[in-house]
This record gives sequence, C-alpha cells and structure tokens, in this order.
Amino acid sequence: MFEMLFEHLARFVHINEQEREILQARLRYKKVSKKDFLLKQGQICTGNFFVLSGCVRLYSITDNGTEQILQFAISGWWISDYHSFQNNIPSTYNIQPVEDSEIAIITRSDSDELFQQIPVLNNYFRLLMQRAYTAALRKMELLLVTSAEDRYFQFVNNYPEFVQRVPQYMLASFLGFTPEFLSMLRAKGRSANHS
Amino acid sequence: MFEMLFEHLARFVHINEQEREILQARLRYKKVSKKDFLLKQGQICTGNFFVLSGCVRLYSITDNGTEQILQFAISGWWISDYHSFQNNIPSTYNIQPVEDSEIAIITRSDSDELFQQIPVLNNYFRLLMQRAYTAALRKMELLLVTSAEDRYFQFVNNYPEFVQRVPQYMLASFLGFTPEFLSMLRAKGRSANHS
Repeated sequence: MFEMLFEHLARFVHINEQEREILQARLRYKKVSKKDFLLKQGQICTGNFFVLSGCVRLYSITDNGTEQILQFAISGWWISDYHSFQNNIPSTYNIQPVEDSEIAIITRSDSDELFQQIPVLNNYFRLLMQRAYTAALRKMELLLVTSAEDRYFQFVNNYPEFVQRVPQYMLASFLGFTPEFLSMLRAKGRSANHS
Repeated sequence: MFEMLFEHLARFVHINEQEREILQARLRYKKVSKKDFLLKQGQICTGNFFVLSGCVRLYSITDNGTEQILQFAISGWWISDYHSFQNNIPSTYNIQPVEDSEIAIITRSDSDELFQQIPVLNNYFRLLMQRAYTAALRKMELLLVTSAEDRYFQFVNNYPEFVQRVPQYMLASFLGFTPEFLSMLRAKGRSANHS
C-alpha cells in the first residue's frame, strides 16, 4: 500500500528492514475526495501528507474571499503546513484534494518519535525541505520577474500533464492571474499552434 | 569565533563536545566586503554560508540587466544556492554582502562527511530548511495577494531595523517594486506619522 513511499525514500536515503517495519506500522492511509479537507484554516495541522495517488492543493482565503493556491502536490510529493505542524499552532491554510486521492500520513503525535527511531528520516526530509525551499525561491523569481504570459507558457512547457489535470481556475490562482486572463492565453496558445 | 553558530545550533539540537570539535575544525571563516562575491552566477556554489555579522543577499540578473533580490540573510541565518550546492551544477544566482560581513562556511567538500560524522546536523538543517520553505511560501502569498503598498507597510512593521539597514533600492527589489514607488510610499509613511 505504501510501496511508492518506500521507493521514494530509497531514492534519497538507505533505510534498513527494521526501520521500514517501524515506519510501516506508524503510517496511516486515507482515501479522500474533492469535498474532504486534510487541513482547514484555524485548525492545527496534524499530519505530514504524502500523495500516493491523485493531487492535493494548499491554499489560503484572501480578504475578499477568493482562494489563493500556493502549492500543489501530485503523487510522490509531501505536503503539509509545516509551520503549524511543527509549532502546534493554528494554520492559516487549507489543504484539500483536487481529485480523488490516496494519502499516506505521518501524524504529529508519531512524528518526533519516528525521527528519533529512524534517524535517517532527518536526512530524507532535510533533502526534501531543501528542494521545496529551492522550488519556492524559483517560483518567487517567476512571480517577480516574468510577465504573466511568459509565466504561463513556461509552466505549460515544464508541466504539460499537470496543466491537463488541474482545473483552469486553480491553475490561474497558482500562477497569480484571473481565470479570464488564463482563457485569453490559452486561446492565444491554440491559435499559435494552428498557425 | 564561531560562538554564535554554536548557540544557534543549540537552540535546535543537542550537539556533544566531540561533535562540536569536529565541526569547529571544519568550519571556515571569511571576512567579506560589499565588493566580494560568495557566489557568482555561472559558478557552482561551493559553500553553505552562515552570517556571523553583517548582511548578505541572494539575487539573480533579469533579462533586462537589473538585479532581482530573492533572499536576505542577516546574522544568525544560513544562505546558499542549495540546488547548485547539492547537485554540483552552475548557479543562476549571485550571493554578495550588502555590507562588511563575517561568514562561517561549510564547504561542499566537507558537507557530506559532516552530515555523516554529526548526524544531528541533519535534524538541524531539516528544521532550518523547513523554516526557510515556510517563509518562502509566506512571501509568495504576500506577492500574490497583497498590494505593493500593504506589502511595504507589513514589512516595515515586522522588520523595522532591517528597513533602516538595507539600501532602499535593494528593499524595493526584494518587495517587487521600483525604487521610485518605494520613495513615494516612504513619503506617505512619513506624512502619516506626522499627521
């Protein structure tokens, strides 16, 4: 059930048989649909979520009531509000599936003990957090220096299947523009392909 | 010389005397001025830099030749291009002091061995990378949902000494607007204080 997670682990660190059993016994499995929440704004984030299948988004609600998506996670990615999770404080974010998804969960109550019992998990998550930070810096650069149009076409080129999979209004939110602007860009992309 | 770094470490993890000596022996010390570079675009990033005193910035050069600052580090912060550092590939960033600074360095060539010899460093950097990722997500949210004006005043309220310390054109770059726009906001802030 958690095979994909152990394969992911093995790409970064070596975990022995005993450690694998300890982790396996602690992991929780959850099947979630679009209406479920893994985290709701105001709650303390109680899980570190690994997407086994499907797609999940992390978003906040802006002052005018719209959703601002900050992060997607597809299969093979971890997602959580680590600030809330680590410091035991209410979250300002929501985490919700974009489509029916299967999730492996390390709960808050298990987390500290697992890091002690399986020290190599520190190494694994150090490398993953480093990657997440690097990617966030890159996204920040994209927001600061790239025009909305270039941002869209760069994203389409880099993640074509992702663009097919995620509803357009969510993609627009993630890239920082309105759904109307995205429709205009898509029309432009289509006519460029046909010319 | 590295006392501040060991104090920082102790806030997150326990490091024993032997581990402390191993790390102390490997750390490099560098005094740098505004004209020096810790990393130049196109080079492989060879260090993970801890600011003992002063202030350092990480920036890229945009297509039209201007600087885009993505990260500052003041005393007590680590900074690096972790993507370049980890994967041994040329960086797209520059890292340069904003003022005369003292830096502690873990070099690329020492890094892997140090993580093996002092396993608790994995825990330390896991927590730091997690914080850096969380902060980057927050900054991304600020860029996406907050008006330039609110962004500036939020920043001034949260980091008043920082605003005094960093040249205004750098602050403008970091917050994603022009120096002229920043001057206008500062004038507005002054007149609001006097009213």
